[in-house]
Amino acid sequence: MPRYRMTVEYDGGPYVGWQRQENGPSVQGAIEAAILSLSGETVSIRGAGRTDSGVHAMGQVIHADLSKEWPVFKLQNALNAHLRLAGERVSILEVEVVGEFFDARFSAERRHYVYRIINRRAPLALEAGKAWWVPKVLNHEVMHQAAQILVGRHDFSTFRSAHCQANSPVRTLDRLDVTRNGELIEIRATAQSFLHNQIRSFAGTLKLAGEGKWTPEDVRAALEARNRKACGPVAPPEGLYFMQVDYPAVITDRRKRTQVNGDDDLS
Amino acid sequence: MPRYRMTVEYDGGPYVGWQRQENGPSVQGAIEAAILSLSGETVSIRGAGRTDSGVHAMGQVIHADLSKEWPVFKLQNALNAHLRLAGERVSILEVEVVGEFFDARFSAERRHYVYRIINRRAPLALEAGKAWWVPKVLNHEVMHQAAQILVGRHDFSTFRSAHCQANSPVRTLDRLDVTRNGELIEIRATAQSFLHNQIRSFAGTLKLAGEGKWTPEDVRAALEARNRKACGPVAPPEGLYFMQVDYPAVITDRRKRTQVNGDDDLS
Repeated sequence: MPRYRMTVEYDGGPYVGWQRQENGPSVQGAIEAAILSLSGETVSIRGAGRTDSGVHAMGQVIHADLSKEWPVFKLQNALNAHLRLAGERVSILEVEVVGEFFDARFSAERRHYVYRIINRRAPLALEAGKAWWVPKVLNHEVMHQAAQILVGRHDFSTFRSAHCQANSPVRTLDRLDVTRNGELIEIRATAQSFLHNQIRSFAGTLKLAGEGKWTPEDVRAALEARNRKACGPVAPPEGLYFMQVDYPAVITDRRKRTQVNGDDDLS
Repeated sequence: MPRYRMTVEYDGGPYVGWQRQENGPSVQGAIEAAILSLSGETVSIRGAGRTDSGVHAMGQVIHADLSKEWPVFKLQNALNAHLRLAGERVSILEVEVVGEFFDARFSAERRHYVYRIINRRAPLALEAGKAWWVPKVLNHEVMHQAAQILVGRHDFSTFRSAHCQANSPVRTLDRLDVTRNGELIEIRATAQSFLHNQIRSFAGTLKLAGEGKWTPEDVRAALEARNRKACGPVAPPEGLYFMQVDYPAVITDRRKRTQVNGDDDLS
């Protein structure tokens, strides 16, 4: 039974999130329905990150086991045709055949997200639903300085949703860079895995630093409090994009990878 | 009666176009309704370019005469609040007070548009409605080469909609550059004024050159035919963005400017 790895783009706006749920349409459900229409198979696919409702992806990675051997371009085009027919805002960017040892979630070595803020007086027309509109002028250099306090291995209880199911609040944050290009401020976050709402909690807190309401030292105190109540407001989902997942160049042993990697990712 | 110049961004998707029409919601109508809600005044505003249904703007310029003197930030914020309340995808980016000699349409010296193509196998999810999806690989260098044939003063009858109301098909095209950045191809067009559908006609024709179906010499033959039937297919509206309008640094005489400039702009 061949295993396919797929890279997926989606507009998170119309969905309850990545994961199949009772309360509305999900990205996972949309792709599983496209596979069912195409091949008649009821499959359960797995994604590298369980993005929340409204969160977008440019590089979500999934794997799916299908009974048939498909030429990869044919499978990609056929799934995209079914997704378009169903009116879904989901697109399969790439398909590869992988060995059964590849697991989109458990083989992941590193996950990359971007949080986009548009910092201007005027509300968003073209980018509505695709970025967080912040009218008050933000100092992105102070935001970047505050962000560096969060980089490294920490107990991130402060920046974790009350609904987070991960066993441990400890994570290693590899990168949290804040840059500005005109009115666009981007926060780039990289880690092996993230806690639920971690990046949106960072973004909401860094915004307070950018406005001058918090100093970088206040951000440090929030981190050290290890208490959800010390967090700034959680930033809205529409600014968050799941960009890329890194896997080891050679995955030779699935069990080994499962041990190496963290337990979850629910940004 | 003070005259206000405003820079406007909009998502053209939900509108029948810039201009107020009987058959559906227009951008002009949305702004006029916001002014009416705000000040009780029924005004008729004028825009620098009459964009078609589905065409977007990042820098449309309009002027409006209001009876009251408003602080510019207050007017901007109040109009944006009314636009948001009405669910419009229109945002006022900037407001300035200008003299009565300023006319958004007739004072314009140069108009800048961008046509965006996303050139990749996979359909658009995040950018759906915001670019033209072209799955076949395009050679942007050949497109640029073909575009240079169109630059200059020509009879553009080939690249003009049958519905174009301009008196003359002669225009001076200052710039038509084609560049690629990854999967994004941008066609940047600058002229004092454009004919109806001119840029979308260029984009559809240049796509044929990029695919290798037409040579640059075929594009020259199409231009020289001065016949609408020689044009490639018109590209869809969702790739087109009205970016910027240039005005003379000092506008001292409105009548003079009216003579200097072309009669129309209906890209």
